[in-house]
Amino acid sequence: MQLHQSSWPEIDAYLQRSKGIIVPIGSTEQHGPNGLLGTDAICPEVIARRAGDASGILIGPTFNVGQAQHHLAFPGTISLRPSTMIAAIYDWTASLTRHGFERIYWFNGHGGNIATINAAFSEIYGDWSLKRAGANTQPVRCFLRNWWELGGVGDLCRQLFPVGEGSHATASEVSVTYAAYPDAVKQVEMTPKIAPNGPILDADDYRRRFPDGRIGSDPSQATAEKGEKIIAAASKALVGDFERFLAAN
Amino acid sequence: MQLHQSSWPEIDAYLQRSKGIIVPIGSTEQHGPNGLLGTDAICPEVIARRAGDASGILIGPTFNVGQAQHHLAFPGTISLRPSTMIAAIYDWTASLTRHGFERIYWFNGHGGNIATINAAFSEIYGDWSLKRAGANTQPVRCFLRNWWELGGVGDLCRQLFPVGEGSHATASEVSVTYAAYPDAVKQVEMTPKIAPNGPILDADDYRRRFPDGRIGSDPSQATAEKGEKIIAAASKALVGDFERFLAAN
Amino acid sequence: MQLHQSSWPEIDAYLQRSKGIIVPIGSTEQHGPNGLLGTDAICPEVIARRAGDASGILIGPTFNVGQAQHHLAFPGTISLRPSTMIAAIYDWTASLTRHGFERIYWFNGHGGNIATINAAFSEIYGDWSLKRAGANTQPVRCFLRNWWELGGVGDLCRQLFPVGEGSHATASEVSVTYAAYPDAVKQVEMTPKIAPNGPILDADDYRRRFPDGRIGSDPSQATAEKGEKIIAAASKALVGDFERFLAAN
Amino acid sequence: MQLHQSSWPEIDAYLQRSKGIIVPIGSTEQHGPNGLLGTDAICPEVIARRAGDASGILIGPTFNVGQAQHHLAFPGTISLRPSTMIAAIYDWTASLTRHGFERIYWFNGHGGNIATINAAFSEIYGDWSLKRAGANTQPVRCFLRNWWELGGVGDLCRQLFPVGEGSHATASEVSVTYAAYPDAVKQVEMTPKIAPNGPILDADDYRRRFPDGRIGSDPSQATAEKGEKIIAAASKALVGDFERFLAAN
Amino acid sequence: MQLHQSSWPEIDAYLQRSKGIIVPIGSTEQHGPNGLLGTDAICPEVIARRAGDASGILIGPTFNVGQAQHHLAFPGTISLRPSTMIAAIYDWTASLTRHGFERIYWFNGHGGNIATINAAFSEIYGDWSLKRAGANTQPVRCFLRNWWELGGVGDLCRQLFPVGEGSHATASEVSVTYAAYPDAVKQVEMTPKIAPNGPILDADDYRRRFPDGRIGSDPSQATAEKGEKIIAAASKALVGDFERFLAAN
Amino acid sequence: MQLHQSSWPEIDAYLQRSKGIIVPIGSTEQHGPNGLLGTDAICPEVIARRAGDASGILIGPTFNVGQAQHHLAFPGTISLRPSTMIAAIYDWTASLTRHGFERIYWFNGHGGNIATINAAFSEIYGDWSLKRAGANTQPVRCFLRNWWELGGVGDLCRQLFPVGEGSHATASEVSVTYAAYPDAVKQVEMTPKIAPNGPILDADDYRRRFPDGRIGSDPSQATAEKGEKIIAAASKALVGDFERFLAAN
Repeated sequence: MQLHQSSWPEIDAYLQRSKGIIVPIGSTEQHGPNGLLGTDAICPEVIARRAGDASGILIGPTFNVGQAQHHLAFPGTISLRPSTMIAAIYDWTASLTRHGFERIYWFNGHGGNIATINAAFSEIYGDWSLKRAGANTQPVRCFLRNWWELGGVGDLCRQLFPVGEGSHATASEVSVTYAAYPDAVKQVEMTPKIAPNGPILDADDYRRRFPDGRIGSDPSQATAEKGEKIIAAASKALVGDFERFLAAN
Repeated sequence: MQLHQSSWPEIDAYLQRSKGIIVPIGSTEQHGPNGLLGTDAICPEVIARRAGDASGILIGPTFNVGQAQHHLAFPGTISLRPSTMIAAIYDWTASLTRHGFERIYWFNGHGGNIATINAAFSEIYGDWSLKRAGANTQPVRCFLRNWWELGGVGDLCRQLFPVGEGSHATASEVSVTYAAYPDAVKQVEMTPKIAPNGPILDADDYRRRFPDGRIGSDPSQATAEKGEKIIAAASKALVGDFERFLAAN
Repeated sequence: MQLHQSSWPEIDAYLQRSKGIIVPIGSTEQHGPNGLLGTDAICPEVIARRAGDASGILIGPTFNVGQAQHHLAFPGTISLRPSTMIAAIYDWTASLTRHGFERIYWFNGHGGNIATINAAFSEIYGDWSLKRAGANTQPVRCFLRNWWELGGVGDLCRQLFPVGEGSHATASEVSVTYAAYPDAVKQVEMTPKIAPNGPILDADDYRRRFPDGRIGSDPSQATAEKGEKIIAAASKALVGDFERFLAAN
Repeated sequence: MQLHQSSWPEIDAYLQRSKGIIVPIGSTEQHGPNGLLGTDAICPEVIARRAGDASGILIGPTFNVGQAQHHLAFPGTISLRPSTMIAAIYDWTASLTRHGFERIYWFNGHGGNIATINAAFSEIYGDWSLKRAGANTQPVRCFLRNWWELGGVGDLCRQLFPVGEGSHATASEVSVTYAAYPDAVKQVEMTPKIAPNGPILDADDYRRRFPDGRIGSDPSQATAEKGEKIIAAASKALVGDFERFLAAN
Repeated sequence: MQLHQSSWPEIDAYLQRSKGIIVPIGSTEQHGPNGLLGTDAICPEVIARRAGDASGILIGPTFNVGQAQHHLAFPGTISLRPSTMIAAIYDWTASLTRHGFERIYWFNGHGGNIATINAAFSEIYGDWSLKRAGANTQPVRCFLRNWWELGGVGDLCRQLFPVGEGSHATASEVSVTYAAYPDAVKQVEMTPKIAPNGPILDADDYRRRFPDGRIGSDPSQATAEKGEKIIAAASKALVGDFERFLAAN
Repeated sequence: MQLHQSSWPEIDAYLQRSKGIIVPIGSTEQHGPNGLLGTDAICPEVIARRAGDASGILIGPTFNVGQAQHHLAFPGTISLRPSTMIAAIYDWTASLTRHGFERIYWFNGHGGNIATINAAFSEIYGDWSLKRAGANTQPVRCFLRNWWELGGVGDLCRQLFPVGEGSHATASEVSVTYAAYPDAVKQVEMTPKIAPNGPILDADDYRRRFPDGRIGSDPSQATAEKGEKIIAAASKALVGDFERFLAAN
C-alpha cells in the first residue's frame, strides 16, 4: 500500500488497523561511472514498494534528497545541510504523528544520512522529554534501518559479489537500481577495476581521493538479475523486521 | 533525461550543452474522496518526465512534500513549515549552482507552494544582492511555473470538464494521476456532487468547511483517458516554455 | 484609532467591541528618481490612518521594512531576508493573538512582500494545524490586502494616469506619498519618459535592467492633488473591506 | 534628512559626504494608564527627526517593535523574540553596509532593547572576526545610545520632574510623546501616585507587581511643554554625540 | 555541592530542600601576555565551587565558551555566535526547569557575555509571556551576577591593585586563576606597563588597538596570594547574594 | 598542554609546530545510583589531560553538555537540542580554524553524542563543499573518537569487569570518575544487581524501562584503582591515535 497512491479515506481505514508506516529515505548523489544519481533513494523505494504490495504495510513517500555534501564535486549531486534535513524529518514526523501514527520506520539507503537521521530522532523525542509536545499527543517511536543490514541481505550481497562489493557505488546497490530501471543500465569500463578506500571529508578532498566517485567497489559487475534477487530477499526481510518493530515493547 | 536515472558523467556532458534544469515540485496531501495523496507531486513529475523523454531536457528529482498545513486534518497529509521548505529549496539550489546550473525551472503542482517557493527565490537571490554569495559564482536564475498555467492547458481542462473542475482535488489533476497510475483509480460517490468554495485557513477550519477535502470540484468525472490528453498537451507546452526561459534575457 | 497613540486601557476597551486590527506593512526601498524610499510603507500607513480616523478601526504600527533584496543595488534600500520577515510577522501575530485579537488584516504596500507574507501566514496557521499552539488559544485569522487592489482604486489610478502608471515607482504611489509629505515632492526629468519592463531577479541584474529604478512607469506625472484623491478613495474602500473581513464566515 | 522621505539619488549624494546614519529604534508596549503604546519608538523618532532637520544628518526609518515580552500581559504590546530581533538588526545593517555606510548609530528608546541590540552587534561583528564577511566589505561600526543618556538630558529630566520620574512610563518620556502628538494627551488619575519598583521577569509576573504598568513613576505630571524642552535639548545633544561617533578613532 | 560530581538521587534529594542553583558561565578567550585563555570561566568556577563547598548550595557545570568574537584575532580564543549562545542557555534552562528548578543564578565571568545572557533570559521568559510554555510548568526566574560586582569584591580588588587593575586581563582576574592553577603562573614583561583603553569592535580592530590583548591593565602584578584573598571574599559574598535571590519576592 | 591554562602567545608558539588539537566532548546526565552526572565529560577530560601532560599535545576546553534528551526524567541532566549542539560545534570549529588549526580531534565520552557530532561535521564540511567558506581558509579536518574505543581499552575494561560492564553507567566509566574525584565515590546497593537492557526513546519511556538509570551494568563494582588503570591505558593510546590522525593522508 503506497501512501502517495492512496486517498485519505484509505489512510483513515489503515489507521484503524495499524499505527505504523515505512518511510523510504535516501539521497541524490553520484554513484560512480555507471551508477544512477538516484541510487540511494531508489533502493529503499523499490524494496519497500515490493514489501508493501506483498503485505499491505503502508509505504510513505520517498525522502529523496539527503546529506551528501561530500559528493558535491560531482555534477548532479544534491544535498541538504544537516540542519535543514533535521527540520524536514521533524516536520514529516510531526505531520504523521498528528494523524495518529505512533511508529515510523525510516528505511534508509544512504550511509551518509545515518548520523543526521539519528540526530533528528533526538530532536523529535526532545519535545516529549522536555514536556513541550502537545499535551494530548502520544510519544512517537522512530526507527532507522539501512536496507543492506536487513537479515540475510548482507550475506546475499557478499555471495553475489565476493570481490569488489565496496562501500560506495557498490555492486549490489547498482544492481538493485538496474532491476528497477532496466533502461538505465550503463556499460562503463573502470580503472582501476576496484576503487580505492579512504576517509570522507569535504567534496574537493573526496574527488581527489576517489576520482570517479567509487569507494572500494567494482560496480561493473552489476546486473539487473542480481538486483532482482536482492530486492526479493530484502523486501521479504523488511516485512518481518517491520512487524518486529511494531510488536516491540 | 532523468537526473535520478543518470550517472554523474552524463550530467557532466549535459552541462556542456545546457545550464538549465526542470525540477518538479509538489505536495503530499489529501485530494478528496477519490484523489491520490501524491497528486500534486505526481502531476508535475509525469508531465516533466514525458517532456524530458521527448526533448532531452534534464529533469531533476521530485520535491514531493511541500506546504500543506491546511490539509493536516485529513490523514496522510505531510507538510513542511514554510521556513523548512525555504531552507530545503535553498539547499537544492545551492547544490545545483555549485555544478554550474544557471537556470532552474521549478515546475509546480500545488497552489499552496507558490508563496513559499517565491519567498525561497528571494532568500536565494539575496545572497548575491548582499554580496554574500561566493565570489566566483554566477547568480542563478529561478523560475516558477504551475503546470495548469502552461499555454493551452487551462483551456483544455475547461473543455474536458466544463462543470466541476474546481480548485482543489480538481477533475483534471485527478485524471492526470489516473493516467499515471491506472491501478490506483478509485470509484467514489460524492455528496454534494460539486464541493463548496471558501477561504483556506488552518487545518481544523478547513475540514469544517470542506468535509471530504474537495474545494469546488467534482473529481468523480476523472478518467485516465482525459488525464492522458492533459499530459500530452502539458508536456509539449512545457518544452516550449522551458526553452523560452533558457533564451530569456 | 492608532495603536501607537493609544494607551493600553484604550486597547483593552477596544477589544471589548472588536477582535480585529489593521496592520500596515510595506518596505523601505528605492522608488526611482523622484520617489521616496519609504513609499511602500507610507502608502498603507496614510490610507489606514485616514480610515482609522474616520471609522474607529484600530490601526497597528507600520511594519516598515520588508522583502526588497532586488532593490539593494540602489542606496537607501533596506531589506529583510524572507526567513527573518516570517519570524517577525510570526512574533507580531503571536503578540496580538495573546491579547485576544482574532482577525488581523495586513494592509500591504509592496508587491515584493506578498509571497513572504503568505508564507508567514502558513507558518502561523501551522501551529494550530499541528496542534502545537497553546491549548487555550483561538486560531487567529490573517488576511492580506494590497492597497491598490481595494475596490475602485485600480480604476481610479488608471483614470488619473492613463499612460505610464507602471508597476514599480508608479505614478499613483508616488502621488500618495506627495500628498502625505508635500515638502518631499521632487522634480526630476526622466529618460526614457516611460521606464522599461522585465523580470525581477537579484539586485545587480535589476540595476542593469532598470538603471534609474523604475519599472514601466512615468512618475514625473505624480502630484499631491492626485495622491489625495487616491487616499480618499482607498481609505473609504478600506473600511468596507475590513468590515467584510470581520463579518466573513 | 529623513531616509524614508528621500530618493535614492539623494542618498547616493549623501554617501559622497558621509558614511554615517542614525537609526531610531524603540518598542511598541504599554506605558501605563496615560502613556502611548508607541512611546519608546516615538521618542527617538521625534528627537532624531529634529536633529536631522537641523543638521542634515541622515535619519533612517524607525525600528518600531522591539523586545517587550515582559509587557505582553497588557493589551497592545507587540514584541519580537530576541532571536528574531537579532536577525532583523543583522539584515538592516547588512543592507546599509552594502551601500557603503560604515557607521550606524542606533538611537534607542527602550531599556529592554539594550541587551538584544548589543548581542546583535556581536553577531554582526562576528562575520568579520571569523573572516566570513564578503571579502571586499569594510567592517561596519555600530553604536548604541539611549536618548535619556545624551549629555544634559538626564539632568533636565530630573529638574523637570524632581519626584516621580520613575523607570518605566516615566514622566519625561510621556511628555515627549505629548509634544509629538498633542491630540493624544490623556488625563488619568493614578493610584498610587507613584508606582512601585521591582524586578522584571515574565509578563504575568510583571502585571502582578505593576498592576497599571508603571514602574516607579508618576506620569500624570507629563505635559507637552515639558516634552518640547526635552526634545529641544536632546536633539541638540544628539547632533554632537553623532559627530563624535563619526570622528572617533 | 557540585552537580557534575553528584548522582541523580543526590540532586533529587537537593530539590526537596531547594529549587535554586548557581551556574558558572564564562568564556575562553585571550587574556593578554600572562593571562590564561580560560580566565573568565575559571574565575566564576573556583569562586562558586568554594561557595558550594562551604554552604551546600548546588553548583552546576561551567558554561565555558561564550561570546568572544572580538578576541578572535588572538589564537586560542573560542567564541559562540550570540544566536547560538541564546539557544544553548535556553536549552540548559529548559532542562533544569524540567527537573523543578525555579531559580537559576548565572554567575558570570565575562563582560562580553552580559548582553547575550540577558537576551537569552528574554527569549526564555517570552515562552511564558506568550503562553507557549508547557501548561504545567512554573515560570523560571533567572538572575545574572558578575563575580566582580559581588558586595565588597570591587573594593578589595581596587585595594589590592590601586594602579593597573584595568578592564580586560585585569590584575584581579589573573590573580584568581593563579590561585586556582599555581602551576600555570607566567612571568611576562609588559610594554607598556599599563595597556591602552578604547572601544571594542571586531577582532582585527581589537588587535590593532590592543596589540597584546590587554585593556587598561597591568596584570604583571598578579599573584596567587592576592587571588586567594579575592576568592575567599567573593565566595563568601556569593553565598549571601544567592540566598537573597532565593528569598526575593 | 591545556588550552584553558595557556596564554595566547603559548598557543601562537604551539601553532608553529602543530596544527592539531584534541577537544574533549561529553555530556551532563544521570549515570545511575552511584555514578556522577558529569561522568561523560569527566572521562574524556581526565584521559586527555593526562595525554596532554605526557606529550605536549594541546587539549582544548571540555564541551561538557551534549545530547542527553533521553535522560531528562532524572534530575540533574542537562541537554542540548541536536540543532543547538550542531551550531555550537560549528562555532567552536570556526573559531579554531580561524587561528590556523587544521585537524580537530573530538574526543568523546557519550554514545548519545555520536550522531549529532557527525552531523555537525557534515554541516562544517558543507561550507567548503558548497564553496561558501572564506576564500583563504584551508578546509578543516575533524575526527571523532570515543574513549572506550581506543586501542586496548575495550579489552582492559572487559578484563576488569567481566560481568556487568553494561552500556550506560558502566563499571568502567564510573571507575574513571572515581579515580578523578576520589571524594565523590558513592556506595549504593543496586537492585537488580545487573540492570536491564532495551531501546532508548524519550525520557519518560527511558525511566520506565530503566528505573534507576543504568543500562545493563553493575557499577557497584567501580573503584578508583581500576579507573586509574583505565586512564593510564587510554591516555597512552590517545597519544598514538592522535598522532596517526595528524599523519593521516
